[in-house]
Amino acid sequence: MNCDRVRNFKIVLQYEGTRYQGWQKQENTENTIQGRLESLLTKMTGVKTQVHGSGRTDAGVHAKAQTAHFHAQTAMSCEEIRIYMNTYLPEDIAIQSVEEVPARFHSRLNAVGKTYVYRVWNTDIPPVFERKYVYVLPEALDEAAMRQAAGYLVGRHDFRAFTSAKKSRKSTVRTIETITIERVGSEIRFTYSGDGFLYHMVRILTGTLLETGTGKRRPEEIKTLMAGGLRENAGVLVPAKGLTLVEVRYNDRSFYEDKGKW
Amino acid sequence: MNCDRVRNFKIVLQYEGTRYQGWQKQENTENTIQGRLESLLTKMTGVKTQVHGSGRTDAGVHAKAQTAHFHAQTAMSCEEIRIYMNTYLPEDIAIQSVEEVPARFHSRLNAVGKTYVYRVWNTDIPPVFERKYVYVLPEALDEAAMRQAAGYLVGRHDFRAFTSAKKSRKSTVRTIETITIERVGSEIRFTYSGDGFLYHMVRILTGTLLETGTGKRRPEEIKTLMAGGLRENAGVLVPAKGLTLVEVRYNDRSFYEDKGKW
Repeated sequence: MNCDRVRNFKIVLQYEGTRYQGWQKQENTENTIQGRLESLLTKMTGVKTQVHGSGRTDAGVHAKAQTAHFHAQTAMSCEEIRIYMNTYLPEDIAIQSVEEVPARFHSRLNAVGKTYVYRVWNTDIPPVFERKYVYVLPEALDEAAMRQAAGYLVGRHDFRAFTSAKKSRKSTVRTIETITIERVGSEIRFTYSGDGFLYHMVRILTGTLLETGTGKRRPEEIKTLMAGGLRENAGVLVPAKGLTLVEVRYNDRSFYEDKGKW
Repeated sequence: MNCDRVRNFKIVLQYEGTRYQGWQKQENTENTIQGRLESLLTKMTGVKTQVHGSGRTDAGVHAKAQTAHFHAQTAMSCEEIRIYMNTYLPEDIAIQSVEEVPARFHSRLNAVGKTYVYRVWNTDIPPVFERKYVYVLPEALDEAAMRQAAGYLVGRHDFRAFTSAKKSRKSTVRTIETITIERVGSEIRFTYSGDGFLYHMVRILTGTLLETGTGKRRPEEIKTLMAGGLRENAGVLVPAKGLTLVEVRYNDRSFYEDKGKW
């Protein structure tokens, strides 16, 4: 099965996060998405194989299109790898596509943007079919107030007030390109697109916007809250199960420009 | 909580059928939808309460809008009953609405039509988020052939070839009003509307249509198959999990015409 050349593969995958302890493998458990993928690819290739994701997703968070890459010496085609992986993965993880990419492609370092959706079930009739993917909050929500507050968040800002990460020297400046808030049936759906998001950032942003929607805070407060940079002034961390990573974007030229050479 | 008058309540409910042994209560198990509802209403009213559904759904079949009715002596409002029930029901059953109806309303006898949807996942990329609600069949399907075959099924016919029910004196004549077959993303979705459906009928019809779609049988065969009336000539019984009851229709006048009187 092996061939001499080490090849680089980009994969796009879906998962329901409910029963996993998040993306990142941990010492004492195999029950992570990364851990499951590495075990399987190690079995497939016969040598220890590492999988690098575009970023971590927390325990309970879902993905419709997470991206990752791994290096392997194999004679299998991309299609054969996809079928092999889907045959052995549990039913809550599925590989959408496998693509061979240039050696220098890196799923995290080359990512230029991500989109997350946070789904709030906004009625007192419990969701049966969507129950694992939504946060239930039946209270009336002022969509105009939430949109006004969201407007202050869009752009390049220091989002340190909106992360649970401990202080570090790493920059907490990020750019949010768009936030859309729309009613879809019984749901209010928050969609965030940006160049990257800090630890817990989307869930704290949503918690803060929801507090604006219920009238607990005024939209204008967002500005002073963001300027102050204190986590304790931002809103609650809403539950993981409402969050889904829906897209990871790459600037094609950044890794495809030398495609003709390999 | 009780008042003298016995009131009749119509409920509309959703459920995911995965972990239930169907709608109808059975002697040795509480694990049916009807069983769960009766236990709860018996607790709510303090007296043994029976729940009558518009029809049975089999083990594993889902419902987006099943209807049922029950009689109770209670001073609770419809809204209070709905909230009470949703508070105590498991998360895979939810009451959409509770409505007081005339004493003579019967959810099964007054039903004039039903709609079922059967969902086929028609790609080799496994469904993560829909996996409990679809039947996976990645083979290429000829939609035109299936539509032609479906055309022969629409109308008033004897459907005895399409039921698993043992022979009985009951009529096996039913009217199918429409069958639509449409591609929705990765799915082929079959929607059946009719005045009523025999035991296993929708799943056997779908199995037969799928065999037409894969080229195993010609569309015209449906006519002779239906005329012959033999179960063994029809297609396979496809899995329960792909089936969802989506609507039960009533002719409003049939039970509302005396609304002013009660």
